[in-house]
Amino acid sequence: MSASYPVVDIHTHMYPPSYIKLLASRTTVPYIYQPTESDSPDTPDPRLIILASDDDPSRPKALRGRPVDSTYSSFDQKRAFMKRHGISCSVISLANPWLDFLDPDSALTTAQEINNDLDSASAESNAAPSNSGLKLYAFGCLPLSAPAKDIVSEIHRLTTLKHVKGVIMGTTGLGKGLDDPNLDEVYSALASTATLVFLHPHYGLPDSAFGGPEVVARSGHVLPLALGFPLETTIAVSRMYLAGVFDRHPKLQFLLAHSGGTIPFLAGRIESCVAHEREFIANGGSKQGPQRSIWDVLHSNIYLDAVIYGQPGLKAAIEAAGSVDRVMFGTDHPFFPPLGNEKDSKWLSVESNKGAIDGCLPQEEAKRKILGGNAVRVLGLDL
Amino acid sequence: MSASYPVVDIHTHMYPPSYIKLLASRTTVPYIYQPTESDSPDTPDPRLIILASDDDPSRPKALRGRPVDSTYSSFDQKRAFMKRHGISCSVISLANPWLDFLDPDSALTTAQEINNDLDSASAESNAAPSNSGLKLYAFGCLPLSAPAKDIVSEIHRLTTLKHVKGVIMGTTGLGKGLDDPNLDEVYSALASTATLVFLHPHYGLPDSAFGGPEVVARSGHVLPLALGFPLETTIAVSRMYLAGVFDRHPKLQFLLAHSGGTIPFLAGRIESCVAHEREFIANGGSKQGPQRSIWDVLHSNIYLDAVIYGQPGLKAAIEAAGSVDRVMFGTDHPFFPPLGNEKDSKWLSVESNKGAIDGCLPQEEAKRKILGGNAVRVLGLDL
Repeated sequence: MSASYPVVDIHTHMYPPSYIKLLASRTTVPYIYQPTESDSPDTPDPRLIILASDDDPSRPKALRGRPVDSTYSSFDQKRAFMKRHGISCSVISLANPWLDFLDPDSALTTAQEINNDLDSASAESNAAPSNSGLKLYAFGCLPLSAPAKDIVSEIHRLTTLKHVKGVIMGTTGLGKGLDDPNLDEVYSALASTATLVFLHPHYGLPDSAFGGPEVVARSGHVLPLALGFPLETTIAVSRMYLAGVFDRHPKLQFLLAHSGGTIPFLAGRIESCVAHEREFIANGGSKQGPQRSIWDVLHSNIYLDAVIYGQPGLKAAIEAAGSVDRVMFGTDHPFFPPLGNEKDSKWLSVESNKGAIDGCLPQEEAKRKILGGNAVRVLGLDL
Repeated sequence: MSASYPVVDIHTHMYPPSYIKLLASRTTVPYIYQPTESDSPDTPDPRLIILASDDDPSRPKALRGRPVDSTYSSFDQKRAFMKRHGISCSVISLANPWLDFLDPDSALTTAQEINNDLDSASAESNAAPSNSGLKLYAFGCLPLSAPAKDIVSEIHRLTTLKHVKGVIMGTTGLGKGLDDPNLDEVYSALASTATLVFLHPHYGLPDSAFGGPEVVARSGHVLPLALGFPLETTIAVSRMYLAGVFDRHPKLQFLLAHSGGTIPFLAGRIESCVAHEREFIANGGSKQGPQRSIWDVLHSNIYLDAVIYGQPGLKAAIEAAGSVDRVMFGTDHPFFPPLGNEKDSKWLSVESNKGAIDGCLPQEEAKRKILGGNAVRVLGLDL
């Protein structure tokens, strides 16, 4: 709690009231279902149904998806969580699936409303003396289903919101992935405004990649969350790299969730497969391969969070990032809460990430950078 | 070349003549197509067509799949490759797809024939004075499409073949994956005979995981090879772990190709997702989760090869394995050959793996273990 240096959580989600309202107004995925008295006399928490696979028609709606309690939307609870874990600043972001699903017509105004909400809620929270110096900032969201000019205009407008320090984005882009050439205009705007993109998974892998839905169902959410999420990020970033996005936009700045999926571990293999690919022009083929080394991209265009729950992964992340200056602490709050009655104690999910940082960084200076110093520097936080 | 300690390559493939004959006798995947004079006047190399996606009917057969030159089947060329790279011993294994595709009726006799071939070719090679002390051993193959009793009998018979030091296996098991309870009998036989299983990918991920076949096609084989292979291994081992295979068979010994896919990097996340899974009995759910920590499994049941082409991955592999004693050098020969005219020089794919070992292990002793000492100890090689 009383660290003498800032501890900044750059991976921490919220559904602000305007987003909860939006999901609650919908009846198709993603949506929030509010159980009625006829579902249960106990008026349990609303259910958050964000994936097609959550919306299993054989289950009552009151049991689909996951409970969305007030930790998703309450700034008080966010601050209580921060206090309990010694976090001095949270850069909050909308949880998935952001605005990927919106009608093109309403996407821009919805994005503006939510981004304004995140900015003003952060401003209010920071101004309140009762909040004992805890600071909030936010990653904004983009209206990716809207026409490109609207996306670009929101990127520019976000630079005027004082508490918005970048944007969060999923892996679908405009619907065809992050290697879609139609994103070039968006990438140009992100690069020219020096907007950091926090890249986060949502869609995972198709069930068939795991052996089918029966295989997945055997272990609850473990396969989609433990593997599907990081492998989605791995594929998305690899596609960007292979398609030359970082060649065309050498100033893009991405922060990858979950320490980059598995990119730090696989970067060497990707590099080797590129060097040995017969179809790339460099080897006499007809296809254009990436022009820059993946290590150069990792060292110049990519930051990694430290949400990796163990030392082997964290060390690889730091090593692949090229320096402790490119890795940043995060919690993934409010996901992975304690499941027992220990709600007032420290969260295992947070402590295992903090423990990995403590364990593999004996140097106090390096630890401070990852726990907060890097976020302050990269995002320009006023703490 | 003249290292004063043994350098052992535990990831090096061959198609011995009996296997080439088998593939050449087939006309459906997997098969070898021998181009005729009408295909080309130059009588080019036969084509190896091992994946359904290789067998594209819109291309002439002589252009499908990949050229399978004599490096796949020539022991002379294997030894020349070893000499060039200072490798004193190779533990050769059939390349994918092994015998996964055989009719149950012929599977056992085919496996016996190929295993006998591998054993006797190794024996002959080792006995020839002209081979200047280069040693060959082999991983055998199992008739996995045969009835379980045949698989078990071949596992026992392999212990009598002096040059066979374990088995290579893919991720499909009996057809339903490595978490199939019907494999228990096979696992018991593997454990009771202390047979090391070299687990190797072949099937990759479905194209849909990458965004569809058009996305995959844009960068040749990079996505399936750089990501599909290691992610297949990651999923297969995670399924085994989650299904309690290592709980029921605590003596199983697996050597994972490509440094475990991405298991070393994701182990912490897998552990955390298991601990937070509401559906597991420990957390009030109805499903049995794994009983042992994934770190315990990594430290007791799993060896990793060092085929990872970079220091960040190799360090994570060593760290996740718990010690330098559980990681072993490999080359993946004859795959990833130089594509230019430098056929007589050292291979980039080998040098990048050796370079990673040199770079991250300043201690000579640790380097010797990974380059050969561990393989000698674990496989009981007589060098």
